[in-house]
Amino acid sequence: MITLYTWTTPNGRKIPIMLEELDLAYEVRPINIGQNEQFDPAYLAISPNNKIPAIVDHDAEDGALALFESGAILTYLAERHGRFLSPSGPARYKTLEWLHWQIGGLGPMLGQLGFFALRSKEKAPLAIERFTEEADRLIGVMEKRLADVPYLAGDDYTIADIAAYPWTAAAAGMMAAPLAATWDRSPSVKRWLEVVGARPAVQRGMAVPKV
Amino acid sequence: MITLYTWTTPNGRKIPIMLEELDLAYEVRPINIGQNEQFDPAYLAISPNNKIPAIVDHDAEDGALALFESGAILTYLAERHGRFLSPSGPARYKTLEWLHWQIGGLGPMLGQLGFFALRSKEKAPLAIERFTEEADRLIGVMEKRLADVPYLAGDDYTIADIAAYPWTAAAAGMMAAPLAATWDRSPSVKRWLEVVGARPAVQRGMAVPKV
Repeated sequence: MITLYTWTTPNGRKIPIMLEELDLAYEVRPINIGQNEQFDPAYLAISPNNKIPAIVDHDAEDGALALFESGAILTYLAERHGRFLSPSGPARYKTLEWLHWQIGGLGPMLGQLGFFALRSKEKAPLAIERFTEEADRLIGVMEKRLADVPYLAGDDYTIADIAAYPWTAAAAGMMAAPLAATWDRSPSVKRWLEVVGARPAVQRGMAVPKV
Repeated sequence: MITLYTWTTPNGRKIPIMLEELDLAYEVRPINIGQNEQFDPAYLAISPNNKIPAIVDHDAEDGALALFESGAILTYLAERHGRFLSPSGPARYKTLEWLHWQIGGLGPMLGQLGFFALRSKEKAPLAIERFTEEADRLIGVMEKRLADVPYLAGDDYTIADIAAYPWTAAAAGMMAAPLAATWDRSPSVKRWLEVVGARPAVQRGMAVPKV
């Protein structure tokens, strides 16, 4: 059994998608970040960075394993169950390359765009301009990649797609207004969103947690 | 032989540190991002996200391998040479957890602090406040961790430390002014900076590229 600590955000949805893809048994513990539940001392013992998602795998090989950081959790689950990440060779490192691109670029930059363009009542035009441009650039990089190959790592659906899907769906959904021009020139990303979004495990994972 | 494409930035210094730690032969190709050399089409073929660092390992197992994203490159080199990342077990995933924490948190947030607090002539107080607070929070998370264990992943020096060192050194160096209060309460991070910074390979790596 795996305990999943998560919330209704793009980072929070990556892990339930992976767990659904792997058809693993898991229980969900919602961590309501709107009510600062991520600062609860019991949760900080599992996730000292006070962020979601985190997991405890009660059946890990060396005893219960607590893990935070969505990219590390996806890599752990992929290696433990031998799916969605090649064990060696170029396919493995192309997957990790695009996983890290999401973790270090697409996610943080869209996160800042959401804050400055949408959530913040005070407006900082310099920041809105900076993060709109960076989000546009990143989706442009994704567009070029997905014009050449069906999935981010190449021919196969991997943890790089699982990591990128909830953020890209948010960029096409709640952040569509500041990125309207971007979406006009991103047919390959839209095609990928449709293909990935049609997977039953992705649909189930995107509905977690139910609150 | 490995070709390393890099520049004089925190992300750019991670890979020469790792290559020096592994005592590998490599040639350096400086990519001057101040002159937009990262947009050169020949470089984009290697690093389609137009960022440094990137490598080409001409002796990879399945032929020459081009890789971008510092976290993916560190993981590749660690797995290829069997050092600084345990092949399995909790130590492996604690390393990946803190590696991803750097890639998705410490790096991007300090990068934004550097832009808004130091490099931008136009000032956006909302953004300066946001990224100063987030950098302070992240170094506080690091302080708690390093008060308990000598290195980020636990007992051993790993790619998580190699990834975090150049950014933390920048936070203690060029970003020391906005983070003055943070450093007053971070004795464990300062101790770690001294220990890691005393490694000869780190000192050699931090001096690359020579320009």
